Amino acid sequence: MNGPMKLGLAGLGTVGASLARLIHEKHNALAARSGRAINLVALSARDRTRDRGFDASGCEWFTDPVKLATEGNIDVFVELIGGAEGAALESVKAALNRGLPVVTANKALLAYHGVALAKLAQRKNTTILFEAAVAGGIPIIKTMREALAGNTVDRVYGILNGTCNYILTRMEREGMSFSDCLSDAQRLGYAEADPTFDIGGFDAAHKLAILTSLAFGCEIDLESVFVEGIEKVESADIEAAAELGYRIKLLAVAQRTDTGIEQRVHPAMLPEHAALAKVDGVTNAVAIDTDLLGSILLAGPGAGGNATASAVLSDIVDLATGAHLPALGVQPSNLSPYKRARMRAHEGGYYIRLSVIDRVGAFASIARRMAENSISLQSIVQRRRAGEAGQTAPVILITHETTEAAVRKAIEAVSKDGHLDGEPRMIRIESLL
Amino acid sequence: MNGPMKLGLAGLGTVGASLARLIHEKHNALAARSGRAINLVALSARDRTRDRGFDASGCEWFTDPVKLATEGNIDVFVELIGGAEGAALESVKAALNRGLPVVTANKALLAYHGVALAKLAQRKNTTILFEAAVAGGIPIIKTMREALAGNTVDRVYGILNGTCNYILTRMEREGMSFSDCLSDAQRLGYAEADPTFDIGGFDAAHKLAILTSLAFGCEIDLESVFVEGIEKVESADIEAAAELGYRIKLLAVAQRTDTGIEQRVHPAMLPEHAALAKVDGVTNAVAIDTDLLGSILLAGPGAGGNATASAVLSDIVDLATGAHLPALGVQPSNLSPYKRARMRAHEGGYYIRLSVIDRVGAFASIARRMAENSISLQSIVQRRRAGEAGQTAPVILITHETTEAAVRKAIEAVSKDGHLDGEPRMIRIESLL
Repeated sequence: MNGPMKLGLAGLGTVGASLARLIHEKHNALAARSGRAINLVALSARDRTRDRGFDASGCEWFTDPVKLATEGNIDVFVELIGGAEGAALESVKAALNRGLPVVTANKALLAYHGVALAKLAQRKNTTILFEAAVAGGIPIIKTMREALAGNTVDRVYGILNGTCNYILTRMEREGMSFSDCLSDAQRLGYAEADPTFDIGGFDAAHKLAILTSLAFGCEIDLESVFVEGIEKVESADIEAAAELGYRIKLLAVAQRTDTGIEQRVHPAMLPEHAALAKVDGVTNAVAIDTDLLGSILLAGPGAGGNATASAVLSDIVDLATGAHLPALGVQPSNLSPYKRARMRAHEGGYYIRLSVIDRVGAFASIARRMAENSISLQSIVQRRRAGEAGQTAPVILITHETTEAAVRKAIEAVSKDGHLDGEPRMIRIESLL
Repeated sequence: MNGPMKLGLAGLGTVGASLARLIHEKHNALAARSGRAINLVALSARDRTRDRGFDASGCEWFTDPVKLATEGNIDVFVELIGGAEGAALESVKAALNRGLPVVTANKALLAYHGVALAKLAQRKNTTILFEAAVAGGIPIIKTMREALAGNTVDRVYGILNGTCNYILTRMEREGMSFSDCLSDAQRLGYAEADPTFDIGGFDAAHKLAILTSLAFGCEIDLESVFVEGIEKVESADIEAAAELGYRIKLLAVAQRTDTGIEQRVHPAMLPEHAALAKVDGVTNAVAIDTDLLGSILLAGPGAGGNATASAVLSDIVDLATGAHLPALGVQPSNLSPYKRARMRAHEGGYYIRLSVIDRVGAFASIARRMAENSISLQSIVQRRRAGEAGQTAPVILITHETTEAAVRKAIEAVSKDGHLDGEPRMIRIESLL
């Protein structure tokens, strides 16, 4: 058994406090796994006085995380501060510059600076590990970095944001509106006070950008991710989807195409029998299609203090067992530049919801505009409930396979014909997953 | 980049041939992942002349795998011979004795000799890795050995035998009989000529015994696994299950109980909405319940040359990156002895199918015997189809939670009353999964 491994931890929020507690509580089990003791010896956080449920008295305290990273008597620097810039970035750089391995749960940091940090780590003959940055407690980084070593990945896709999935699940189960679900999620701590990062799809985009690099051995390119959030999903869409045998999920997809790599995050209608359609609540799930395996699926808790701390612990134990793991699966010098796919519009079926002004000929006109754009319809349903009256009627169209350009043109024409009241709503149908 | 890693491979069946081909085809990608070239330099198989789809001309050939392990100019010994004894065991022991790390896909070898081999490896300061031994291409060993390092596992359970799942899926989808499905599976190469090992549940038991050790940090104890195969599952059971909202799967479960660790493999009725109920065909799936994660689920291909070779490759790359991974997660000196749970009968609901001789009072008598044994019935259905006649009627009972002892006593009493024609059939209902 080697000497103990000394950890310095910066950031004592929910995950940081869970981690500190677990390192104490599971000391013996972690030592047995690691072949050496793992000791928490130094800490940094804004407020020293707060009780976080663990005894910090044996730890050296640093007000400045950069100072902890630079001067702490530590073997590993654990960054749980968060944020792509500022103290998180500076302290991680300081630790790597010193040749210390870094463990982080910081997806934004990785999405923006992952390649630069991996290069710095390589130069300093160390590494940066980040299992907790994507899909919480699901070992997706380890799986992609190590278990799929011999595989060529064709596609990685999944449900990467627990907040969105929680909201969509409740909208579906309880018929609640988007805004009511969001308020509830905020009250229960599943959504931030400013929820834009989650519900706008940006959190999932950060995670996807990291997975893309691991999947295809290319550099991380967050800017190339097409992002559409769930803000515009209405109860009417969820209900219509259910009636048609689909469920709406915020889907993140990265796939190899003829022209490059496509990355997208958007609401999608999945057939209700698809594995991802059944992933409910704050659960995350990731599927990977490869040449050797066909598909594998991993599902589990996407967030939470203990689940995320579990992922951080697995990185720490990996470092303790002495594995030399390049951050992004291969050394950054072996990464190919990211080649963005020509913005290929989604090819497949579309769900279209129109609010149609109720008058003679409207239906015929809509059907004609679809035909003019070579869009063949699988179904067309007027969804006004019995007893409802009004001058507009909700109309749902499900198209057979077509292109996004055709759908957009057709909707524009219908709109110009003066048949619509309000914005049309369009959701991609993903039938291949 | 370090010098190349030289592999010796014994066994060139489906998996061995796939592996050899992939090591050639993916040479550059594997080198990028590993930080060094991975070269296949020595081979051993019974028949040297057969064309296996790769160029073996550069490899040294050994007729005797033990000789390859003992004398080959190799850094890693890969055992794909199969079988718990004989050449597989002797060659693995020879390699470990020489201090060479071993990679194997051999579940029987591990189930019978895993602890002894791990001890030998520890003494020789090397290791034996076996990702491919359980659930084919699903990285379940890596997940349990490394990703769950900080977790306390409460239960591990899943569908571990593709042959059984294939047969049960076809019986369900196509209404075929067990024996027709088995013949088809044999014709298609999904089942062996002697299928006992698979359909009797023994293959799943081997895999479960290995997972149990990784889950609970205890020694492997194959003999303690309760095993019941799928031979007695009839179409009538599958149909009745479907009508009642269940699906029948061969389930493998290891769980911590108050009296020790319980290991069991048997057909089980799972609610159709349960994640494992939806795992079809030759797919495998494993769920793990832990203190920190709640549940995580991994699903993917359980067998096949490429999927299994993919798992072997991941072990090889792990060795190339220099990780010091104890075979069973912790060093064998840290394993606790296996403590067998008191043979706790399954507590939960039961499905019971009786062939009841059709006469006045039979139903009342059955109901009375159940009541006498404190078994409360959720439903009782006579399943004779319209138009069918005969002197016996199939009767399906679904019990509320009870004990196996009570069910056995009640059935025995009904049988003694002279109401039954033929053997009663009993399947555990697992509603907690």
